[in-house]
Amino acid sequence: MKAQAATDTDRYRDAIQRIKQRLGDRLSTASAVCEKYGKDESFHPSLPPDAVATVHTTEEVAEVVAICAQHHTPVIAYGTGTALEGQVGALNGGVCINLAAMNEVLRVNAEDLDVVVQPGVTRKQLNTYLRDTGLFFPIDPGADASLGGMTATRASGTNAVRYGTMRENVLALTVVLADGRVIRTSKRARKSAAGYDLTRLFVGSEGTLGVITEITLRLYGIPEAMSSAVCSFPTLDDAVNCVILTIQMGIPVARIELLDDVQLDAINRYSGTDFPVAPTLFLEFHGSTASVREQAETVQSIAHDHSGGDFSWTTDPEQRNKMWQARHDAAYACKALRPDGQIWATDVCVPISQLAECISETKRDIDASQLVAPIVGHVGDGNFHLVLLVDHDDPDELQRAQALHERMVMRALSMDGTCTGEHGIGYGKLDFLQAEHGEAVNVMRSIKLALDPHNIMNPGKIVRV
Amino acid sequence: MKAQAATDTDRYRDAIQRIKQRLGDRLSTASAVCEKYGKDESFHPSLPPDAVATVHTTEEVAEVVAICAQHHTPVIAYGTGTALEGQVGALNGGVCINLAAMNEVLRVNAEDLDVVVQPGVTRKQLNTYLRDTGLFFPIDPGADASLGGMTATRASGTNAVRYGTMRENVLALTVVLADGRVIRTSKRARKSAAGYDLTRLFVGSEGTLGVITEITLRLYGIPEAMSSAVCSFPTLDDAVNCVILTIQMGIPVARIELLDDVQLDAINRYSGTDFPVAPTLFLEFHGSTASVREQAETVQSIAHDHSGGDFSWTTDPEQRNKMWQARHDAAYACKALRPDGQIWATDVCVPISQLAECISETKRDIDASQLVAPIVGHVGDGNFHLVLLVDHDDPDELQRAQALHERMVMRALSMDGTCTGEHGIGYGKLDFLQAEHGEAVNVMRSIKLALDPHNIMNPGKIVRV
Repeated sequence: MKAQAATDTDRYRDAIQRIKQRLGDRLSTASAVCEKYGKDESFHPSLPPDAVATVHTTEEVAEVVAICAQHHTPVIAYGTGTALEGQVGALNGGVCINLAAMNEVLRVNAEDLDVVVQPGVTRKQLNTYLRDTGLFFPIDPGADASLGGMTATRASGTNAVRYGTMRENVLALTVVLADGRVIRTSKRARKSAAGYDLTRLFVGSEGTLGVITEITLRLYGIPEAMSSAVCSFPTLDDAVNCVILTIQMGIPVARIELLDDVQLDAINRYSGTDFPVAPTLFLEFHGSTASVREQAETVQSIAHDHSGGDFSWTTDPEQRNKMWQARHDAAYACKALRPDGQIWATDVCVPISQLAECISETKRDIDASQLVAPIVGHVGDGNFHLVLLVDHDDPDELQRAQALHERMVMRALSMDGTCTGEHGIGYGKLDFLQAEHGEAVNVMRSIKLALDPHNIMNPGKIVRV
Repeated sequence: MKAQAATDTDRYRDAIQRIKQRLGDRLSTASAVCEKYGKDESFHPSLPPDAVATVHTTEEVAEVVAICAQHHTPVIAYGTGTALEGQVGALNGGVCINLAAMNEVLRVNAEDLDVVVQPGVTRKQLNTYLRDTGLFFPIDPGADASLGGMTATRASGTNAVRYGTMRENVLALTVVLADGRVIRTSKRARKSAAGYDLTRLFVGSEGTLGVITEITLRLYGIPEAMSSAVCSFPTLDDAVNCVILTIQMGIPVARIELLDDVQLDAINRYSGTDFPVAPTLFLEFHGSTASVREQAETVQSIAHDHSGGDFSWTTDPEQRNKMWQARHDAAYACKALRPDGQIWATDVCVPISQLAECISETKRDIDASQLVAPIVGHVGDGNFHLVLLVDHDDPDELQRAQALHERMVMRALSMDGTCTGEHGIGYGKLDFLQAEHGEAVNVMRSIKLALDPHNIMNPGKIVRV
């Protein structure tokens, strides 16, 4: 083992030297830098790479990866570090490719409702850029993540119930493969039956099959009318059942977010808001003025049937942004509830018919576990989050949290749901992926080995090799 | 070569004998049967398999594939034989697995808006089954194809502009792999970030990676209101530009189909209709009564701006069905134009901004080529068909048709479009797939070899091994 370790170190050192010759100051081995780039926003500790290479072009990425391939050195792509399952941790060391400086919007094809971006462009940056075009990019995971990272983790968020996830909104990718070859996965046509769907294979592959260096995304016209509303319910069940009926009736809500009483309380404290502390839905409607009115009336009537209060409306953009910012800050609000600020954010997603039962059983389990764990979620998709407030230095509390977490995931799987709706696998959910997919994980492994035979692309994530 | 051929024959014979022991009368080697199962609806000649195995269960498929794997014998899955690029032809002989008898709707999850079906269920059969549930399955490639075949070719059709293609509407698959292992690609949750997107990998793989034996599909509530309209235009350009603006404005039309004058004339003759012989749009609007009215008014006003006539409306279901049946019979109407009834139906798909230019250049090229080739298409997606009426026994005519076809595909590729929007690659478009994807075809080949190392699954389709 020691000889092998020495060999690894030698190989990595040779690779890093060659990259240094190529990139100069843009290659850093400073420990503070490596520490930062080995850490995401989760509780997972930093697993620093041996070097961080800041790249400017697809060609540079291809060169760096080709060098790493020759020296069997791991490659980890990095966008904004907002992942939640340890995706950027350098489990085996190696070279982090920092894509943050590849942050140009390359081409807006307004007539085709699409845009080509570099992977370091963040979602807010893109929408600022688009401001004068009448178009927007809806996918919104909360954090101002890079579009490369969002593609790599198949991100979604509050708007997915209406606009889909990254799966539905990526049209084409440029990808650097594990040996440095560069491919484009698709043309810009809206649909194609030409061969295997490589675009969808790389969306959600978390950097384990290649490094994404260019992304073509779908855009949407900014709706004529947008209205947001808040509605409180006496019980969590009532709120969830209102969501289920809304979805089953096919109302095209743009957002329908659930927050439980604990989460509302945390938000009020953190964001200085005064929402009633009760199970609550945050809603948004997009469309023509008439269609927004019609949708809102229907959902208000469903809410009344489930003992919901009157909608509290926000139509002016500033108020709407404030309300959604409070929603997006939910995780930070949870963090602020604990003096040490440690949270463990996790998510599952179930068929909508199972949502009420899955959430209410989980809520009972939280109470029985004597833990603080707000529930918040993109419930229109059947997707919800548990934000576990855990002191990772308290073994008993940690053990209770792990047990609660495992029961929640296994509950979702038993309801034909998935172990993660949007956070991905990283290395935090490897065992749950196995529980969910069984033999299909071996198919994923075959694909991984076919495209990355030396296991250098973000090794240890999604599949064990 | 001869020794090799003999070996193939021996291996195939051994495999067929073992399958015969297992299936009895459900394994046929009769030449008339084999002839039928080696042929799709295209001009491609029948390439008969050595045997046709009619299966009843996933387990039987797994057994047949395992036997074929042991004897390195090709396996070709067959649904209804409505493919258009030679997908069911047994290029290297082998065993055809006929899935037509696996035609049960297994479970309607009305609350989750999904359904689980066997692959032999056809789209019309499914919608008949769903009749009393208030739900429907929209994807509609014209032919009453099997849902297994539609999944395997990533089919779409007239409704895709609103509801997406099979890519967006398959939630999960059960697949028998090349060695007989059985996997399920996904749970039933609407979204997931759990590992590689195997569902999307098998959708569109044309039987080259495995045999699909169970499909979970999305369903939709039947809209409150549905209205269809027909609108004629003085020129093809006017009609196409009306479509482009409709799409760019984000109007959620359910169907927006283009038919040129030649196609309209063929339809009138075949279906006994009396549509004006001119470039024409067939439209359909779905939604609430108010929303349908609003959409229709907007599109009518766009049509007027492009010199379109008044909408001729059909709201009663029987009239609507008649109109859409005429549209679906377009290919048969084209066939009827020729005494020998031979057609060559092909399709491309381009970004919507390129559609007018691509269609008008193609139209000019048809005229210059002195061929009869109606244009018809799902133009809301940028997708259109050319139905070449060609006497395949006339070398000069065939050569002109091939040249026209190649120019059309290369024109679409040069506009960042795809060589097929919905018909797939089969073996008819192998070279165009290469022209479209370049190096990415090698990635497809790597995946193919990883999942099917002996190249027994529908060999010779999509990628050459």
